[in-house]
Amino acid sequence: MTTQSFQRRYKRLRRLVDHRLMSLVRTDDSRDLSEGCRYVLSAGGKRVRAVLVLLSSEAVGGTTANALHAAAAAEVMHNFTLVHDDIMDHASSRRGRPTVHVKWNVNYALLVGDVLLGLAYRSLLSTRSDHLRRMVGLFTSGLHEVCEGQALDLRYEQDRRVTLDQYFAMIEKKTARLFSMSTELGGLAGGGTPQHVSALRTFGHYLGRAFQVQDDLLDIVAEQQQFGKRIGGDIVEGKKTFLLLSALERARGREKEALQRIMSRRHRAGKGTVARIAGIYTQTGAIDAARTHIQRDTQKAATALDTLPRNSATAMLHWFSGYLLTRVS
Amino acid sequence: MTTQSFQRRYKRLRRLVDHRLMSLVRTDDSRDLSEGCRYVLSAGGKRVRAVLVLLSSEAVGGTTANALHAAAAAEVMHNFTLVHDDIMDHASSRRGRPTVHVKWNVNYALLVGDVLLGLAYRSLLSTRSDHLRRMVGLFTSGLHEVCEGQALDLRYEQDRRVTLDQYFAMIEKKTARLFSMSTELGGLAGGGTPQHVSALRTFGHYLGRAFQVQDDLLDIVAEQQQFGKRIGGDIVEGKKTFLLLSALERARGREKEALQRIMSRRHRAGKGTVARIAGIYTQTGAIDAARTHIQRDTQKAATALDTLPRNSATAMLHWFSGYLLTRVS
Repeated sequence: MTTQSFQRRYKRLRRLVDHRLMSLVRTDDSRDLSEGCRYVLSAGGKRVRAVLVLLSSEAVGGTTANALHAAAAAEVMHNFTLVHDDIMDHASSRRGRPTVHVKWNVNYALLVGDVLLGLAYRSLLSTRSDHLRRMVGLFTSGLHEVCEGQALDLRYEQDRRVTLDQYFAMIEKKTARLFSMSTELGGLAGGGTPQHVSALRTFGHYLGRAFQVQDDLLDIVAEQQQFGKRIGGDIVEGKKTFLLLSALERARGREKEALQRIMSRRHRAGKGTVARIAGIYTQTGAIDAARTHIQRDTQKAATALDTLPRNSATAMLHWFSGYLLTRVS
Repeated sequence: MTTQSFQRRYKRLRRLVDHRLMSLVRTDDSRDLSEGCRYVLSAGGKRVRAVLVLLSSEAVGGTTANALHAAAAAEVMHNFTLVHDDIMDHASSRRGRPTVHVKWNVNYALLVGDVLLGLAYRSLLSTRSDHLRRMVGLFTSGLHEVCEGQALDLRYEQDRRVTLDQYFAMIEKKTARLFSMSTELGGLAGGGTPQHVSALRTFGHYLGRAFQVQDDLLDIVAEQQQFGKRIGGDIVEGKKTFLLLSALERARGREKEALQRIMSRRHRAGKGTVARIAGIYTQTGAIDAARTHIQRDTQKAATALDTLPRNSATAMLHWFSGYLLTRVS
């Protein structure tokens, strides 16, 4: 298949997901929270987690129609975490629009998040599967891990001695878990063998890790418009990214001090500081280290995929990994 | 059976629930959120919802051991709503202890609430039942309704024209739904017939309505120590209770104006005001109206119970209704 046909198919799957998400939110106007839910779910986005569910299911022989319930569930759970995380991070905008707590208020956003979780479970329960109990269990353990990951993230914000190992433990819960949950859910919805489901989980895990390190990298190297975020935003906020922690392990003298000031989050870094820190990331080799990590995890993800049947869905999963992990250019 | 034997059995069931709740929270200390979950779930309380699940299951022939999973799930969901509601209401204490967002912080409380919901689903999924899909669906729709009820409650806070009908619509979502969800879950876990499950749902619905009106009444007539809350707290906060809305419909002239000032929540009422408003509640007949409502709903709940098999569990449900609804004395 050609890049173009992959892209067309991706667009089609995304449209399916968007449509399903809208139909999930009941149209009954008396429901106070449905407006907020619609606002969140209509914001678009890459629908990565939903597409992973759909392709994983198809890779093991399942139908898109049946996997769509679990796909929407994974996507809604992701959006639930965004709404609550935005409250916690005091984020004012997402995908170019005001966040829910800014557009309405914190209490409303809190409830919209809660009810989104209900919507997610409701969607998941529509799946026809002999493994439904296991799927709901998997979904619930995904919820746990994501909350624990966010709790770690909040704790690390106050901590000046976070290590790269701790970083990986955190992103494995906060990001990679929803990826591997999505691929595993797809495998289960599609009726895959235990070996295939396990391979899909491994694929999702490494793809999720690579995706997060890539996200950290994009904060520095992305073109602002393409990425939709301000360059250096993580530096301004003193976020414990792969780049910061990796550079800290490598830097000495004044450079190390400059990085430690970012870690301590006592001042918000200005434009000059962002440029200086980005320079240190390059000089210390942190940028290269991030790229190496992404390549290594992408390779592990691909190896896991290779144990699955060769079909158009697994081919598309290969393409999709590449698409997600070359978002730089 | 005697009152004493009912009380002994209630104590035994409560202990079972407490124990199960503690074993639900994993003991793994690396989990940041488990401390908060343990704090919430160890606070005790009447465990009304869990006991309703257990007795409903037994009423239709189920075992306590199997219903305990759903019982804990209902109780954890209730506690999830308390943690998030306390954030929204800026409540500083609950059951005589600091609320989670006061003891830790708002972000932590938000995550503890989220993860409690995960714990609730996890517990529910351990139930052995042919109706598990329906039980999880019921649980999810309970979550929806409770969130919608809280959204209504928040909206009514800003609204000076709330009617008694709106009040009942709100408490049916916010309070009665979790009661009827609990009795229905118990019926399903116990393998009851559709007729029995439906009767249990009706029982829970009316019991929940009566319970909430009783709660409003206790704000005025309870002995402070027994109830564990400050008398007149609802008046101080300008809460739209049955008493306030009922008195407003009945009052004229200066009394009506005094009630409207409470409704508008522009000033926090002092001690003298509380006494005056309580007096208006009595004079307008709002107190009597509340008692009439409680009696009528209690009667409807009892009538629903009478269609169930006569056994020690249904006898205990009768006793439990009376126990909950005579908390005044």
